[in-house]
Parts: sequence; C-alpha cells; structure tokens
Amino acid sequence: MADRSEPRRRGRPRGAKSGDTKARILDAATAEFSEHGYEATSMRAIARRAGVDPSLVHHYFDDKQGLVAEVVSVPLRPDRVVQEALEAPIDELGERLVRAVLGAWDSGPVRPAAIAALRSAVGQGPVARMLREFLRREIMHRIASALGPAEDAELRAELAASQLVGVIMVRYVLAFEPVASIDVEELVRRVGPAVQWHLTGRPGTLDTVASQANNSTHDE
Amino acid sequence: MADRSEPRRRGRPRGAKSGDTKARILDAATAEFSEHGYEATSMRAIARRAGVDPSLVHHYFDDKQGLVAEVVSVPLRPDRVVQEALEAPIDELGERLVRAVLGAWDSGPVRPAAIAALRSAVGQGPVARMLREFLRREIMHRIASALGPAEDAELRAELAASQLVGVIMVRYVLAFEPVASIDVEELVRRVGPAVQWHLTGRPGTLDTVASQANNSTHDE
Repeated sequence: MADRSEPRRRGRPRGAKSGDTKARILDAATAEFSEHGYEATSMRAIARRAGVDPSLVHHYFDDKQGLVAEVVSVPLRPDRVVQEALEAPIDELGERLVRAVLGAWDSGPVRPAAIAALRSAVGQGPVARMLREFLRREIMHRIASALGPAEDAELRAELAASQLVGVIMVRYVLAFEPVASIDVEELVRRVGPAVQWHLTGRPGTLDTVASQANNSTHDE
Repeated sequence: MADRSEPRRRGRPRGAKSGDTKARILDAATAEFSEHGYEATSMRAIARRAGVDPSLVHHYFDDKQGLVAEVVSVPLRPDRVVQEALEAPIDELGERLVRAVLGAWDSGPVRPAAIAALRSAVGQGPVARMLREFLRREIMHRIASALGPAEDAELRAELAASQLVGVIMVRYVLAFEPVASIDVEELVRRVGPAVQWHLTGRPGTLDTVASQANNSTHDE
C-alpha cells in the first residue's frame, strides 16, 4: 500500500452504498482472476477495474486469498485452515492436516460451496486456472515451507496434498460408503499416517523420519 | 444369455451395416446408463433399446464394463488394469497398483480421454452416476475382494483408491510440478507404500502387516 500510485482516497463506505461497492469489487476480482489467473492479478488491478481505491479492497477482503474465497463463495479460508495445522510439530503434521481439512469440509455451510469450487478447479472454465494457482501458491507452497530446506519438499508437499485431495474426492464428491459417513477421527487414524509418510517418510519403505525419532526416544 | 426372452436372432452383421449397428448399440447404452445408472442397466435392456439381439451387444462390446469404456471413449479397460495388478502378492499390491494405474494414464491415447472421463465423474451430468457406480463396482469392490475377509476391506480399498485418485488429480488434472513430470517409478517408490499401508497397515501407526511379515522373515 505504500507505493500506491493513485492518490484519491474515498474513506470507508457508508450505508447502502457499501454493498454496491463490495459487489463491484467482487465482479472486478472475478474478471481479473479469469483473465490473468491468481498469481498475475494484483489487488491494485482489481481496485482499478472496480474504480475504487485499493485501500477499499483491503478493507472489504483483507487480502488476495480472501478475495478468492469470496469469488468462489466458500465461507472459509483454506489457506488459514492449512496454516494453522502447519503450526504443529513436524511429526504430527499428517494427522493435524487431515483433521483440519476434513473438519472444515464437514461443516454444513462449507461443504456444498467447497464441492462446487472443487468441480470448478477440475473443470476447464476460467475459474479453474485461478483455483489451481491458488492451491499451488497458498496450499502446496505453505506445506512445502513447513518441511524446511529438504530438496524434495515441493514433491513431498504435493504428494501429501494428493492424499488429502483423494480423500476429499471419495468422501464428498464420489460419496462412496463407508468413507462418506465414517467419523473424521477414524479417518485421521487411517489417513494421517499416509500424509505423514509423504511429508517425512523414506521413499520405498514405510519408515518415517519422525517415527524413527520417536522410536529412538523410546529406546533410551 | 441362457434366459434370453426375445427369440429373434439376427446373426453377425456384415459390411457397412455393422458400423451402424455398433453406433446404435452405443447410443442405446449411453441413454440407458444415463437414465438408470451403471448397476441397474442390463445388456439385455441395451439390446432392447437398440432393437438388436443381446448376442450382438456381447459380440461388439464383450461385457458391460467394455460398454462403459466405449461410452466415455476411453481406449482402456480400467477394470482389467486393476485386476491384473491385483494378481500380485498382497504385500506388493501398493506398488503394483500405482505402476499399473499411472502407466495406463501416462499412455498417449488414454490420457486426454481419461481426464475427460474424470471430469464427467466429478461433475453433475448424467454420465457422472454411471461412472461412479462403475468405479465402485468394478474398482473398489475388486480391490476389497483382494484383501480377503477383513472386516474393514471396503474401507481400506476406498482409502487406497483415494490415494490413487489424488495422485491422478495432482499429476494429470491440476498438473502441478514436480508431480506432473516426475518418472512413474519414482511415484511408485513414493506413493506405493502409502497405498500399501491403506491396504494392510495398522491404523494409527506406520506398520503394515505385510512389512512385519517381511521383517520376521528377515529375522529368522
């Protein structure tokens, strides 16, 4: 915001007008994301298109991630859900990610909107590119960063995410029983270790660096 | 075929006519699957709708699984790919399934058709229900059967499939790098153990029954 080039400030909106402004910003964001994708779109470009000051965009939507959630009408910030789970110790990340992601999808208002967003991401419409770039930048990169400087951190993060995406597909989209109805904690027990293994496991084996660390602690 | 109720037999088609007949059967199959789903549709109902003898449907398409592959224009029989992988020893199933499924998707003619089919399965169109029932009946059930009488065989099969579906999503649909370009054998090393773990692992741990069996063999 420091290098804002357009000096006109309009202050906070009041009354009925604010709904119009917010809707105009959302329309502009949808158009910019559709034309340029998630990464190449700036908050400033959205403000310009909507004909408002950039500070207003930040006022209504916090940041670009927040705008994406609103564009696809998902009442949830997936980047925050994942970020919070990633604050756990590294050998608990698998279970924490499964619990956080499935807990979010299980909630009533989120599920239908999230399924619709997933369908868009898989499809070929203009929203697809935005959602894929968002997933890559805000989810995969975040998970990879939590793994530290490992050479294969990006690959591990994507494979961990692949397991999460797969469970989401079977539970919510394909809706196969028993996975569709089983308790989240049972899935945490069964899927958590697979995610953990992608994050910290030794390829070709079923050992994980984390579980080995645990074992040597127990041995002492 | 023993209890065929319509006695009219037309024999095998000849010349240009056979193409018409095959196309008519495919149209009828598409319509029947769309209206009634995969499980409730019989070869006989398709023959009736196409106005041909049921033996002709079997002549052109072998069986119902073959018809599904033709309806969605995928030049591959996913049920056979999986069935072949399932003939491996139980503690190799994870790697074998990953190698077979990704090997099939990697092949040039299969990939675009398979991606289109996956988009349909995720969508809400009439083909979605057929594909989901097909996946459930011909893929999940087959994997579950390979696990023997385990009480949670269906759940394990679906979770193993969830890992496969997730890698397919990240590699082919979302096309995230590095997973999109990495060698299949590297994915076999990294994803195989996760699939194996779903099939034979002990929930809440990273041990598998299979790897423990191996370990005790090594100890002796």
